[in-house]
Amino acid sequence: MIATENETGVERKYFAHPQALVESSEIGPNTFIWAFAHVMEGARVGANCKIGDHAFIESGVVLGNNVTVKNGVAIWDRVTVEDNVFLGPNCVFTNDMNPRAYIKKTGAGLTPTLIRANATVGANATIVCGVTIGRYAFIGAGTVVIRNVPDFALLVGNPARLIGWMCVCAEKLPLPASAPCNSSVTCPHCDRTFKLTPEGLALCDAEPSGASGGR
Amino acid sequence: MIATENETGVERKYFAHPQALVESSEIGPNTFIWAFAHVMEGARVGANCKIGDHAFIESGVVLGNNVTVKNGVAIWDRVTVEDNVFLGPNCVFTNDMNPRAYIKKTGAGLTPTLIRANATVGANATIVCGVTIGRYAFIGAGTVVIRNVPDFALLVGNPARLIGWMCVCAEKLPLPASAPCNSSVTCPHCDRTFKLTPEGLALCDAEPSGASGGR
Amino acid sequence: MIATENETGVERKYFAHPQALVESSEIGPNTFIWAFAHVMEGARVGANCKIGDHAFIESGVVLGNNVTVKNGVAIWDRVTVEDNVFLGPNCVFTNDMNPRAYIKKTGAGLTPTLIRANATVGANATIVCGVTIGRYAFIGAGTVVIRNVPDFALLVGNPARLIGWMCVCAEKLPLPASAPCNSSVTCPHCDRTFKLTPEGLALCDAEPSGASGGR
Repeated sequence: MIATENETGVERKYFAHPQALVESSEIGPNTFIWAFAHVMEGARVGANCKIGDHAFIESGVVLGNNVTVKNGVAIWDRVTVEDNVFLGPNCVFTNDMNPRAYIKKTGAGLTPTLIRANATVGANATIVCGVTIGRYAFIGAGTVVIRNVPDFALLVGNPARLIGWMCVCAEKLPLPASAPCNSSVTCPHCDRTFKLTPEGLALCDAEPSGASGGR
Repeated sequence: MIATENETGVERKYFAHPQALVESSEIGPNTFIWAFAHVMEGARVGANCKIGDHAFIESGVVLGNNVTVKNGVAIWDRVTVEDNVFLGPNCVFTNDMNPRAYIKKTGAGLTPTLIRANATVGANATIVCGVTIGRYAFIGAGTVVIRNVPDFALLVGNPARLIGWMCVCAEKLPLPASAPCNSSVTCPHCDRTFKLTPEGLALCDAEPSGASGGR
Repeated sequence: MIATENETGVERKYFAHPQALVESSEIGPNTFIWAFAHVMEGARVGANCKIGDHAFIESGVVLGNNVTVKNGVAIWDRVTVEDNVFLGPNCVFTNDMNPRAYIKKTGAGLTPTLIRANATVGANATIVCGVTIGRYAFIGAGTVVIRNVPDFALLVGNPARLIGWMCVCAEKLPLPASAPCNSSVTCPHCDRTFKLTPEGLALCDAEPSGASGGR
């Protein structure tokens, strides 16, 4: 474990594999960074994160707490990942809608992407920049996302299409993709109840306390 | 080449690039492990394998003999790869059907995947966990596999669909995907004959001897 | 920066990150090679290229000038990439149409791929070998290309389908994918005019001078 001091003088400890390349000074406590991963200077990584082998976190990226970045994921400047997000192996982000090698873009010329808290991005999924992936949304493996994704939505395919809704507890809810607004549903696994709103599914009850939002 | 002793005292030699990270003591003879690849402790790798740059083999993985793991492939605990399998560049495996960053799973909580002998997984294909890919099956590049795959089946698309059958000799057989059970076919390239069974295509003759199953 | 001498005695300088592995002696001036990237002996890389973290350039590859190779891209023997090409993160190439682990192919047994000047290959796209991707073509993120791509064509999907045409200036042209041959179109962003030919879109005016072809 590597001990550092943060602004308030509180000692923070994170782990970096000897073969990892960590240039950022903003890594939260209890975060693990594995072999051949590269976290650039100016990237901000929260606490309790796991950053797998061969991952790459560019300057300007913001990762929340408890984020899992599986192997081979590259996260670019202008991508923001909130707390408790799961990024599956080799899922791919972008920050330029129409790249040409001979047209240089930086800063405001790049297009942001937001992955909201508790979402899951499946293995080898592709997230085209400019989208927001909603809270607890679940992007299936190999999916190509080109539009915003509502909260709790389950998407698959190329291009991504909505095929259902995924509970906090990671079980598929018994609510069809075509359900009309204001439909309600109860999870048979965890008894949480939801109502369908224009922004996607919404929990009817107060959300579970704690950073995890877990069961 | 690195020389080691196995249980029977026979000297085994494998090659690891100086920039590879090999923590396993169970690597078969004549296996090559290339730069920036990482084989974790407890992974079992057979003889005559090729493990490309930036590959990752997790603890608990079992790889047979003569397996080709192209660059950038990560193989997870609970994935078993039999002899003579080809894993194309950047093909992606998983071991959790419905991952959430805040729900930890280990051991029996993970979902196994089996790649049977002589199969080919194409470049950038995605294999969702829980499936068995049959012997000599051929998964086209970019395919997303979500169900079991019969022996000798040729699949493409997202999600994967059966579009034909692939011979031992790597040529497409003149048998339509819609052929009824008990149909038979002879490969115009190598003269092998097959019959269609409920488990997929089956070789009518005894299989060629030798580990390779090759022509 | 690393200084080398080329055949004519002119000093050439390129940058290699201390964690990069550069075995080739044919790297053009002002090219940057980043951490954990591997450029093999015998690979030829032009001037002003950018080769991202975890990229792999195999012996036999030819890269032109001003090529951007984003992170995690592996380029194989028999793949040729012309000037000013953009290869998005984790896009995947191949050089064997029907790989089997037990059938070894080298040299002429492999299948070539050509990426023509100024083309863009999107993030996580898959390029099946044997194809030519035309000049200024634009392959969307997550696309699986299995056939030749005309100049300036915009393709998406698995398998790839033509959905329009992309200008030099990286804006989509107001010309439908179904437009008949000899149709003409003017870019509302940069005023370039084009005519549709059997090889794809063609610039009516002389092309902009300079290596970049840019605006």
